[in-house]
Amino acid sequence: MNKLLVHLSRDVLAKAVQHVFKAVSNHRHAPNLSGLYIYAGNEEVIFSGGNTSLKVQYKVCITDRKTQIMKKGSIVCPAKYLYEIIRKLNDGNVILEADEQLVLSITSGNTRVCLSGVSPMATAFIPPQHHQESTRGIDVSYNVLKSVIKQVAEAASTSEAKPILTGVLLEIQGNQLTMIATDGVVRMAKRTICIENEGEFSGSAVIPRANLMEIAKILDDEGLAKVNIQLNPYEISFMTHSHLIESVLIEGYYPSTKNLVPSSYVSEIVLDIQLFRKVVERVSVLADDNLITMHISEKKLELISSTAEIGDVRDVLFLKDKVGENFSITINGKYLISTLRCIESDTIRVRFTGSKSPFVFLPDLEDRSWLFLLTPVMTR
Amino acid sequence: MNKLLVHLSRDVLAKAVQHVFKAVSNHRHAPNLSGLYIYAGNEEVIFSGGNTSLKVQYKVCITDRKTQIMKKGSIVCPAKYLYEIIRKLNDGNVILEADEQLVLSITSGNTRVCLSGVSPMATAFIPPQHHQESTRGIDVSYNVLKSVIKQVAEAASTSEAKPILTGVLLEIQGNQLTMIATDGVVRMAKRTICIENEGEFSGSAVIPRANLMEIAKILDDEGLAKVNIQLNPYEISFMTHSHLIESVLIEGYYPSTKNLVPSSYVSEIVLDIQLFRKVVERVSVLADDNLITMHISEKKLELISSTAEIGDVRDVLFLKDKVGENFSITINGKYLISTLRCIESDTIRVRFTGSKSPFVFLPDLEDRSWLFLLTPVMTR
Repeated sequence: MNKLLVHLSRDVLAKAVQHVFKAVSNHRHAPNLSGLYIYAGNEEVIFSGGNTSLKVQYKVCITDRKTQIMKKGSIVCPAKYLYEIIRKLNDGNVILEADEQLVLSITSGNTRVCLSGVSPMATAFIPPQHHQESTRGIDVSYNVLKSVIKQVAEAASTSEAKPILTGVLLEIQGNQLTMIATDGVVRMAKRTICIENEGEFSGSAVIPRANLMEIAKILDDEGLAKVNIQLNPYEISFMTHSHLIESVLIEGYYPSTKNLVPSSYVSEIVLDIQLFRKVVERVSVLADDNLITMHISEKKLELISSTAEIGDVRDVLFLKDKVGENFSITINGKYLISTLRCIESDTIRVRFTGSKSPFVFLPDLEDRSWLFLLTPVMTR
Repeated sequence: MNKLLVHLSRDVLAKAVQHVFKAVSNHRHAPNLSGLYIYAGNEEVIFSGGNTSLKVQYKVCITDRKTQIMKKGSIVCPAKYLYEIIRKLNDGNVILEADEQLVLSITSGNTRVCLSGVSPMATAFIPPQHHQESTRGIDVSYNVLKSVIKQVAEAASTSEAKPILTGVLLEIQGNQLTMIATDGVVRMAKRTICIENEGEFSGSAVIPRANLMEIAKILDDEGLAKVNIQLNPYEISFMTHSHLIESVLIEGYYPSTKNLVPSSYVSEIVLDIQLFRKVVERVSVLADDNLITMHISEKKLELISSTAEIGDVRDVLFLKDKVGENFSITINGKYLISTLRCIESDTIRVRFTGSKSPFVFLPDLEDRSWLFLLTPVMTR
């Protein structure tokens, strides 16, 4: 069973190994020795790898003209060396061959590489049978999914003090998928998107923030239309025609975020997000402890920061609209910049409830599909 | 004298501050507090900064239409904050103004920044009078100078054990300029270029490798034709229409490198450098301790490397030409790649004197303007 003989083009092989290596290389323990599993079946070659938290499978079908499976079999090889060698091969055809001594030989032109492998039976690799087309689960647009992950995951906690908050809550209800993340103190992000297939779904899960960000990266360079998501009690899987990515879930009860969002506001401003970001980035240069003070008055937002013994900056941004009271608020510039970078709109609406209450970023239109929340810095 | 009032465009100001900041930011001690000197004279604004080893002056003339000097004066400001703020200003006109309290105010649109400065008299800044056109010194082509520095400086030593070898030897003789560097053990690089102006010059100096690399970077984005080089007993200066860069020299006697180069050879090969580099990079992946063994036979160069318990690579490169004996040699792949990256030719000639003697890289043509030398690894 450990024999294997496959012909592939270098490009296809390099892409497959790279996709899996991205997940393997994040292994905290002994990354150099992490294994990459290669399986040649009747109609496909499957590359697989991962760690206890995240697993990635990438499938190359023989419908790819340059891929030929001469002998079925499987082997596990040192991922890092395999990745580095494949990356540096010349373009053209590559032959992968495993013998009974568990050595994988890689031949390409005049280059011949031998890598020591181990038997897949000696490792914890999952058999590849569940890389099948599925009619279960929900389908979402690939581009939208990527954008949601990038927007929401940033707000999750990076501290292990409350493990549940290092995850992103995914909720499926009817034909809607919502992702929510908060660090429990300063930030909260939430976005809802539509599910593309028919059916009534419901369920929720908390996915580790780091895995979700990795998934967005692994799926990144694909010309994909949709991703199929399936939820089980202990894991979540993301499947495309070539990928199967499985992440563990964080167990526990995700706290309700409904009460975090103020139900009323005393002041609302509308502004151009690009101009706002540029001003905040500029004012941040001299913001000691990242503290930026904002004065909101008629049609005008003034931002001030200073660093003792060095200097200060004052900047003014004209508002597109303003209703409600004039007032001042002190914010953490680092979190504000990070939040503004997550927002994809041109114009945003910001609602303030008071100088000590969280304020909310919303789309300018009647659209209520996303929301970011930030808590001001408490100063005397 | 400390008053100053200047109008400039943001682009010009950003470029000036960036050039000087590159030198200042390499200051090992208290980089955040390093000063950037601004001087407004009758016809130019000079930005200057540096450390005890390297000084950079950048000149903006009022012939630049958007530059206006309203009040002459000078001030020294915290370089890092100045750089960060200028970089983030909007495009357009910027007003720099220093008052008697030694505060530099920077105004651009709605942005107003105040930075605490110190008096230039309290610092060690050199007066800017020697930023003049000079008829002394030698002129070399800017592109050629940059290329020589990049090729040769890499071979200098990075160990402080022999300080003189951390420098690059610059020799001027007749109408030729030669740069030589060696780590004293494994590598040596040498290149000769032509001086563009007339006159009989001679002299030599040893310039710190790090400064020379920094100078190549500072001069990097200029559409410059030529650089004027002047040599004094304790420093060397590189001058263009906008830059004046001064580096200290390393004192001491630079050892003769003439005897390092073997006068005869037993075998000579000619090969394509791009193909060679690709093969060496590939074989390096499995080269434990960077050891690569090369077997030279008729028309063929075989490269072999291995890592215990992981695997091995064999690769073959066909030679364009070969004269002399067949033999084997073991080399350090890291130094070989680094040397090959410094060579700008398409085809090179490699001369071997034996498996334990240094070997030499030369241009394929009769041209003898450059030479790289590498010592093999001694194995049993």
